[in-house]
Amino acid sequence: MTFRVKAVQKTSPDSPFEIAEITRRDPRPDDVVIEIKAAGICHSDIHTIRNEWGEAHFPLTVGHEIAGVVTEVGSEATDFAIGERVGVGCMVNSCGECEQCRNNQEQDCLNGAVGTYNSTDVDGSITQGGYSQKVVVNKNFVCRIPEGIELDQAAPLLCAGITTYAPIDRWGVGEGDTVAVLGLGGLGHMAVQIAAAKGAKVTVLSRSLRKEEQARELGAERTLATTEEGFFEQHRGEFDFILNTISADIDVDAYLGLLKPHGVMVVVGLPPSQQPLHFGSVVGGAKVLAGSNIGGIQQTQEMLDFCAAHGIGARIEKVSVHEVDAAYERVVAGEVQFRCVIDTASFEN
Amino acid sequence: MTFRVKAVQKTSPDSPFEIAEITRRDPRPDDVVIEIKAAGICHSDIHTIRNEWGEAHFPLTVGHEIAGVVTEVGSEATDFAIGERVGVGCMVNSCGECEQCRNNQEQDCLNGAVGTYNSTDVDGSITQGGYSQKVVVNKNFVCRIPEGIELDQAAPLLCAGITTYAPIDRWGVGEGDTVAVLGLGGLGHMAVQIAAAKGAKVTVLSRSLRKEEQARELGAERTLATTEEGFFEQHRGEFDFILNTISADIDVDAYLGLLKPHGVMVVVGLPPSQQPLHFGSVVGGAKVLAGSNIGGIQQTQEMLDFCAAHGIGARIEKVSVHEVDAAYERVVAGEVQFRCVIDTASFEN
Repeated sequence: MTFRVKAVQKTSPDSPFEIAEITRRDPRPDDVVIEIKAAGICHSDIHTIRNEWGEAHFPLTVGHEIAGVVTEVGSEATDFAIGERVGVGCMVNSCGECEQCRNNQEQDCLNGAVGTYNSTDVDGSITQGGYSQKVVVNKNFVCRIPEGIELDQAAPLLCAGITTYAPIDRWGVGEGDTVAVLGLGGLGHMAVQIAAAKGAKVTVLSRSLRKEEQARELGAERTLATTEEGFFEQHRGEFDFILNTISADIDVDAYLGLLKPHGVMVVVGLPPSQQPLHFGSVVGGAKVLAGSNIGGIQQTQEMLDFCAAHGIGARIEKVSVHEVDAAYERVVAGEVQFRCVIDTASFEN
Repeated sequence: MTFRVKAVQKTSPDSPFEIAEITRRDPRPDDVVIEIKAAGICHSDIHTIRNEWGEAHFPLTVGHEIAGVVTEVGSEATDFAIGERVGVGCMVNSCGECEQCRNNQEQDCLNGAVGTYNSTDVDGSITQGGYSQKVVVNKNFVCRIPEGIELDQAAPLLCAGITTYAPIDRWGVGEGDTVAVLGLGGLGHMAVQIAAAKGAKVTVLSRSLRKEEQARELGAERTLATTEEGFFEQHRGEFDFILNTISADIDVDAYLGLLKPHGVMVVVGLPPSQQPLHFGSVVGGAKVLAGSNIGGIQQTQEMLDFCAAHGIGARIEKVSVHEVDAAYERVVAGEVQFRCVIDTASFEN
């Protein structure tokens, strides 16, 4: 048995979005049915549905920053209550048995986690994402959204929040640490808030000082323009931790030079080409260049609780389900401050 | 006041080594005078004295793997006893006051640690290394060599030992971890012994299986030839930790693919050119590419104690002070198993 819900869908990479009806499964015993209230627009959605990351399966609905309310639970999912505020991020299932799953790192499931959209589900169907009225998700991949965060401000936490929280947490960023956040977009604006809430002294690194005021409001002590002459010499050895949230080519050696000895630079973006690196840039001072990719479900819950406790949410622009094409253009142009979130109430308009 | 000792010296990068007399300072209150018994030949010595790492100061004596016996101590260095077995590594001083020195990371002294040779000492003189009869060193940079390691087998620990011990220790390599050591030379043969003593399952990665037998003797479970067809696919995701001890170009993305999620690859060598890296190779699985550069004095002592406790020493070939040119050729050709050590008794021949 299945049921039908409205969704924002594309039938090919180049066609415009349209409102369609898609099928959701009836809940299995371990499923939670969620009425989606808000769905964030992540840059990954755009890459996927434009076929920029390889062949997508059409017709397709994307969206993996989902916030909503529980409307139904399976017989083994009764730890969730009807009406409870919940969120779903980039994954909706994993094997649960491999070394990574047992270690609460479902995103690295050795048998392949099931992505929230464009992924082959356990029943062989292609998963459909959050730009939709409802979604049915295995209870182990549903997080609780604490009181104190609006659902639309919480939605982007499920991807942008955990993507930046995970490395900040893993590398022990804390009181008094000097942290640089490279790029102040959807990811960067979460990183600034989370690092500041951890007690770090946060600097935003950007090509210009255009967003200086917003950076300060988010908790940054200062913004520095990396295009200023002598920038990399002047700020050499200043930072304990750099979080690079951009997906463009960078001068890796130069950025590593900004780290103190034993400092850590984490990258979460994927520039299309290889980045050249002198090993000497990490050998001298025993520095670290690490990657990070979302986080496990337990850590995602921890992140939501942390954000709620510190009054952190995404800064968003609400768009209707009819405005997604235009929103994509603005995301790609870097004009959004800082995250577009689809208000699913607009399906009724 | 000063005194004269014999040393192996070059007067220019291209001239042969010769035996000369060099000057050592009379011990200051915080100095220890060491009669050198054995001095390891490190690849860095060769790079330096051949001007491959920039302009060296000639005439020059190199050598920073020093083992010997205390013959005299200053009035404030009485925690060392005459006759005590001691070692000196790559540093002979540092500021002692900066954040790094206070944190026992003298190698990263923000005011510049004083190298054991070819470095400007606190008195303005150029430091002269260990291919010599005696050396005078600040007591804070002298380590104790425990009973149970011969001095000639201990000498290489002061550089090759700490270079490999530090990352193995920092990244918590332990019982049951799957560790790959890339390259089985002076550094690699120490890494295998140390990682095996930590309880890791060690694999040596080499271009051929030529050193398979020696690898097993040192504690490796197996040797794999990286040139075998399909190697990188076949061993994908196998290792918790890779220590790259070679200084040649490598396919960084391919090696990172050998790591498990959250795995760590540490590089300690310096290939001359930049190495291309897809950020995706660290983002997927949240992997780590880190550098490492010797270690602090406290950790060097810890390493010596660890090696003594586990019966670990360098496997060496002894050479006389008259054979250093020939030894260099063999080191560069990769023919030494696994470290040449100069027997300073041969100054008397």
